[in-house]
Amino acid sequence: MEFFFKPGGIAVVGATASKGKGGNIIVSNLKKGYSGKIYPVNPGYKEIEGLPCYPSVADVPDPVDLAIVFVAAHMVPRVINDCAKRKIPGVMIQSAGFSETGPNGIALQQEIKQIAEKTGIRLWGPNCMGLVDANQRFIFSTVTPAIWDTGLPCGNVSLIAQSGMLAGAFLIDLMSHGTMGISKVCSIGNKMDVDENDLLAYLIDDPETAAIGLYLESFTDCRRFMALSRRSAKPIVVLNGGKTAGGAAAAVSHTASLSANGALVSGAMAQAGIVEASGFYQLTDYCKTLGMYPKIPSRGRNRVAVLTYTGAAGIVSADIMDRHNLELSALNTATLDALQTVFPTWMPPSNPVDMWPGIILNGSKKTYNKAMEAVCADPGVDAVFVHCFAGGFSLEADLDRMAKTAKEAGKPLVCWISGERDRVYQFQVSAQKTGVPVFREVMRAVECLGTLLNRHPRGIETDEGPDASEQIRRLKKDTRLHVLTLEKGPLDEYVSKQVLEASGIPVVEETPVASLAKARQAAAGFGFPLVAKGMVPGVSHKTESNLVHLGIASDQALETAVTSLLQTMEGRGSILIQKQVQGKIELVAGFVRDPRLGPCVMCGLGGVFAEALNDTVFGVAPLTLTDALHMIDRLKCRNMLNGYRGCDPVDKNALGSILVTLGNLGWAYPGIQEIDINPLIIHKGGPIAVDGVVVLAQRVESE
Amino acid sequence: MEFFFKPGGIAVVGATASKGKGGNIIVSNLKKGYSGKIYPVNPGYKEIEGLPCYPSVADVPDPVDLAIVFVAAHMVPRVINDCAKRKIPGVMIQSAGFSETGPNGIALQQEIKQIAEKTGIRLWGPNCMGLVDANQRFIFSTVTPAIWDTGLPCGNVSLIAQSGMLAGAFLIDLMSHGTMGISKVCSIGNKMDVDENDLLAYLIDDPETAAIGLYLESFTDCRRFMALSRRSAKPIVVLNGGKTAGGAAAAVSHTASLSANGALVSGAMAQAGIVEASGFYQLTDYCKTLGMYPKIPSRGRNRVAVLTYTGAAGIVSADIMDRHNLELSALNTATLDALQTVFPTWMPPSNPVDMWPGIILNGSKKTYNKAMEAVCADPGVDAVFVHCFAGGFSLEADLDRMAKTAKEAGKPLVCWISGERDRVYQFQVSAQKTGVPVFREVMRAVECLGTLLNRHPRGIETDEGPDASEQIRRLKKDTRLHVLTLEKGPLDEYVSKQVLEASGIPVVEETPVASLAKARQAAAGFGFPLVAKGMVPGVSHKTESNLVHLGIASDQALETAVTSLLQTMEGRGSILIQKQVQGKIELVAGFVRDPRLGPCVMCGLGGVFAEALNDTVFGVAPLTLTDALHMIDRLKCRNMLNGYRGCDPVDKNALGSILVTLGNLGWAYPGIQEIDINPLIIHKGGPIAVDGVVVLAQRVESE
Repeated sequence: MEFFFKPGGIAVVGATASKGKGGNIIVSNLKKGYSGKIYPVNPGYKEIEGLPCYPSVADVPDPVDLAIVFVAAHMVPRVINDCAKRKIPGVMIQSAGFSETGPNGIALQQEIKQIAEKTGIRLWGPNCMGLVDANQRFIFSTVTPAIWDTGLPCGNVSLIAQSGMLAGAFLIDLMSHGTMGISKVCSIGNKMDVDENDLLAYLIDDPETAAIGLYLESFTDCRRFMALSRRSAKPIVVLNGGKTAGGAAAAVSHTASLSANGALVSGAMAQAGIVEASGFYQLTDYCKTLGMYPKIPSRGRNRVAVLTYTGAAGIVSADIMDRHNLELSALNTATLDALQTVFPTWMPPSNPVDMWPGIILNGSKKTYNKAMEAVCADPGVDAVFVHCFAGGFSLEADLDRMAKTAKEAGKPLVCWISGERDRVYQFQVSAQKTGVPVFREVMRAVECLGTLLNRHPRGIETDEGPDASEQIRRLKKDTRLHVLTLEKGPLDEYVSKQVLEASGIPVVEETPVASLAKARQAAAGFGFPLVAKGMVPGVSHKTESNLVHLGIASDQALETAVTSLLQTMEGRGSILIQKQVQGKIELVAGFVRDPRLGPCVMCGLGGVFAEALNDTVFGVAPLTLTDALHMIDRLKCRNMLNGYRGCDPVDKNALGSILVTLGNLGWAYPGIQEIDINPLIIHKGGPIAVDGVVVLAQRVESE
Repeated sequence: MEFFFKPGGIAVVGATASKGKGGNIIVSNLKKGYSGKIYPVNPGYKEIEGLPCYPSVADVPDPVDLAIVFVAAHMVPRVINDCAKRKIPGVMIQSAGFSETGPNGIALQQEIKQIAEKTGIRLWGPNCMGLVDANQRFIFSTVTPAIWDTGLPCGNVSLIAQSGMLAGAFLIDLMSHGTMGISKVCSIGNKMDVDENDLLAYLIDDPETAAIGLYLESFTDCRRFMALSRRSAKPIVVLNGGKTAGGAAAAVSHTASLSANGALVSGAMAQAGIVEASGFYQLTDYCKTLGMYPKIPSRGRNRVAVLTYTGAAGIVSADIMDRHNLELSALNTATLDALQTVFPTWMPPSNPVDMWPGIILNGSKKTYNKAMEAVCADPGVDAVFVHCFAGGFSLEADLDRMAKTAKEAGKPLVCWISGERDRVYQFQVSAQKTGVPVFREVMRAVECLGTLLNRHPRGIETDEGPDASEQIRRLKKDTRLHVLTLEKGPLDEYVSKQVLEASGIPVVEETPVASLAKARQAAAGFGFPLVAKGMVPGVSHKTESNLVHLGIASDQALETAVTSLLQTMEGRGSILIQKQVQGKIELVAGFVRDPRLGPCVMCGLGGVFAEALNDTVFGVAPLTLTDALHMIDRLKCRNMLNGYRGCDPVDKNALGSILVTLGNLGWAYPGIQEIDINPLIIHKGGPIAVDGVVVLAQRVESE
């Protein structure tokens, strides 16, 4: 990708001398910082912006690594062919008028794509705003030239945006508000060839990029995206637009119906250690913070000291911290003693550290510096949140010195600034240079602290593919599972659980029977209480069809149940006699083959609460046991699993193994479309599949 | 309170000629806009800031309605006495050094309070920053004078802040960023006499105030606050600092004021139709929006049209809207046809309305205006969210005209602005004047739209007190309930449920027995399955003490259970035989007498999920049935109650009546400290109290 980011020479195809037109702006923008050769191409001019102009790409002299194309869409295929002939390795198509405009545009884009595939030329765009490199002052874009003169705020955050308008508009906003230091901004438009994965791979290796933010409306290949992310320790933040859009496709299982709403992508992001943002400013705020503090902290290092000039903001900070899994540091005696030296005698210091009375006594700089030194020396403080004010009240703080103190102690420092508009802006710009993330709002600052301190370490990406997995190999060979290659559609409950059991998942004791006599025989073996269910081909909702009898506690009750079932079933199907499993906690677990992400695994709260409380998480198979345990840890009901109110703690390794197995089973048998275990009852701490269905594709694919 | 807000003349006690000192700043600030007489008081000067200075309050000529006091704390009592003698009705004490500084300060504050009580003089403060009235340019404050010259942004939002520093710092920030139009800002400090309720009552009647925002660390009288709020249709927004455990600890050390329990206060706020904010900017954002659109919309009017210049921001807006209970309007054919006139033919319009291709064809103003007219004419659109850009891309929008269109259609218009810093600022200031709430972030704008469109109507405050309640009168007279005036401590399960039943709450069929024979007799009446419980005086956790036998399904099992219980109980207490209630949904309901809020009612999710998912809501008794139904509607599990997956829908009126009754029972019998119904099982849609305890105070108070 070097020819896009560090081209030896650039041809601008569609350059023009008309001021204000895109083809002129590109040349003007290049001249603002690009030091290589610029070759305007247009048969209508001899010279553009003081540079010699060439009639065609073929006429451009060496060196030329990149062609930026801004001509009418219908002319683009010819230009690409010319570039390929001229052996230009990269073309950035900024023209619009392709797949975003309907059938004709789609055909045109297809035509270009074929040229690229045939010639090996790499295409960036079309319908994009190109590339900006703030540190090198490379502006390969049609974005208004006036804006660059306000200065590009250089930094270490690189952004990738699928939307052209967004990238341009947002860049102008970020630049002029001095809110973030930028390394590169890449607008990828229709990403016909060069996509987010190509750029992510480049930026992961880019020494000038410390954190990467992406706005994406779709993933070209989410699994490759995950693999790239797991390979790197660099913070990656994603804003995935359109998560709630689109309805769920018809799905047999609960698992599949839950997977349609963006939960799958969120699970994939979490599994790969990618931070998710839910809005534009959260995206850049997270990037800014993580770019400045890219190291993943140890688990449980979430204790924060708050230094404030107003107790009220301290209180509100503490309240918001509580909602972001952050704790107020319990300051130790040495810290409190040190703080007392700048506090009035009547005021015992505590956290949040309300410095105002100390500031009245000692002035603000002395008080801020002393407080910062004290909390940075405290081993119970993992990060410092400092409140500053610009514009009055003699509240001057020496942020450089505080930043130095924090840096020497190895503790992240995050700052909230409010005050008079121009002085706030100066403070922001200067904090940016000092390397302190500064926010206009307490809530934003705390969100970023939460993301920083609660960031999960990434799962390790191994080079062995899933086929190297011992369990997958074993599952493929198991003859009891070959039913999965023979049948189609949903398997009945008994066969489904036979499959789960053969795979190593604990299932309830049960047996199918055809008569009351056989039912009594089964009862003698299992003991009461029992459950009797009617399995009727084509009926998946047994409860609603009066096919479930729970809590059968006597021979008499068994007879009543079986008789009733035989009547309801009218000679179809068979009866399943199960031992009734007692357990207060009901979970669900499942598998779904997603059209984009492939085999995925689900885990969640079950029973009557499943839908109402919507507490489910997804992972991408195959999972390691660590992946599975992280999934369980993302459930809202995770605390419920640790044992209280007379419940045994849940065996999380057993639960995790079930998730791993579900994923491996789906991996081993491509015919499996969905698996639903609902409920997965926790009995004496161990999960047991009580009901379940395995759904096979209508046409079983060969392995 | 008029003498504070519109004083006929003001004495400044502690005025000084030394520039930069508080006593000088107050005089200078008054001169900036106050048109009445200003009387500096200080025996050391003949003249201050060109005004004659008086040696003492006694020497000040008429008229004088207000004394602003800024002298050392120990001198304040003498000054208050002087003011009282001089018949000055109001004193605003801006000096610090009172209850916030420990025992001596508390004593001093107590002394002043006694003077006020004796003389009837009203005191504002101490430890506060006073009052600012932007429309009249009244600045009764020590806040830096330079700031006022940038201009006070006049508007219709009034703020009350308990913290002095916060009020000052925040005001400067708000003013200089032009983010909100202000009517009055009141800093109430230690609120020794004049408190949030006095000011709320004043501002509710103030014609220049359309919305009221409060930052409070404690409520002086939360019930009066609720009553005032319910009396008025004006939007009231509260940021309650110190709600969480960590936050509350901070509150204790900061202002010597205790915070009420967060869940209780949140319940009280919701019951009174008060909007809660969780941060400073959310507080002002909500106020700004509700001040511009103070009318409460009809329920279910939450359909929004999004007009954007970038599809990406449209997508992200839709995602965030989904999380704030807002829907994308389904635009009707007429609207789509009207939009098509400014759209390129290849692009079918939809919502979010991506106007960019239309803007390229028709220019931005025409496209924005046409789109605004189209969506405003659509009856399926309840509000419009428009995205604007300031600074390039030829994206000029005529906000005034769009605002006019929206206003004529009676639809709230909310705007997101980004772009080049100075032009964004101009846009904000001008939108403020036009009366359109404008935000720098999509997320903020959507939060405000959500608050605006999902605002609940207030419960009606009746003039009849709770004693007028028919049910309370009946409960008081019921002789079966007189046990509540005779006993103390926790009542046993049977007696507790007898009390609940007598009050009208459905309870499980049960009877206490002393022998196996009596148990069998009871079983014959109830039928299996049964529950047998041992009631042992002093034992409240029956399950943990092996005193509960569930699912007794036969004579044999009953014998085993009763024999085992008799053995465990060793001759103490009695056995309760209950019909076992079947139901998938377990709730909890209860009553608690809070030291500050008095009788309160709780409802929540029960069973094993109760603690883990923390889904409980509170209300303040007595409740109307509407209050109770609103409480139920605030539960996260509310959807679960509407019936699905084979569960009957819950009879919400029956559930609501139980909550009403719990509150009335506690109101009728002051000896009741707590009532717990756990579980309250939903059986065939009806709630039944299966276990419960009524806890009486150790010393029963007389009614």
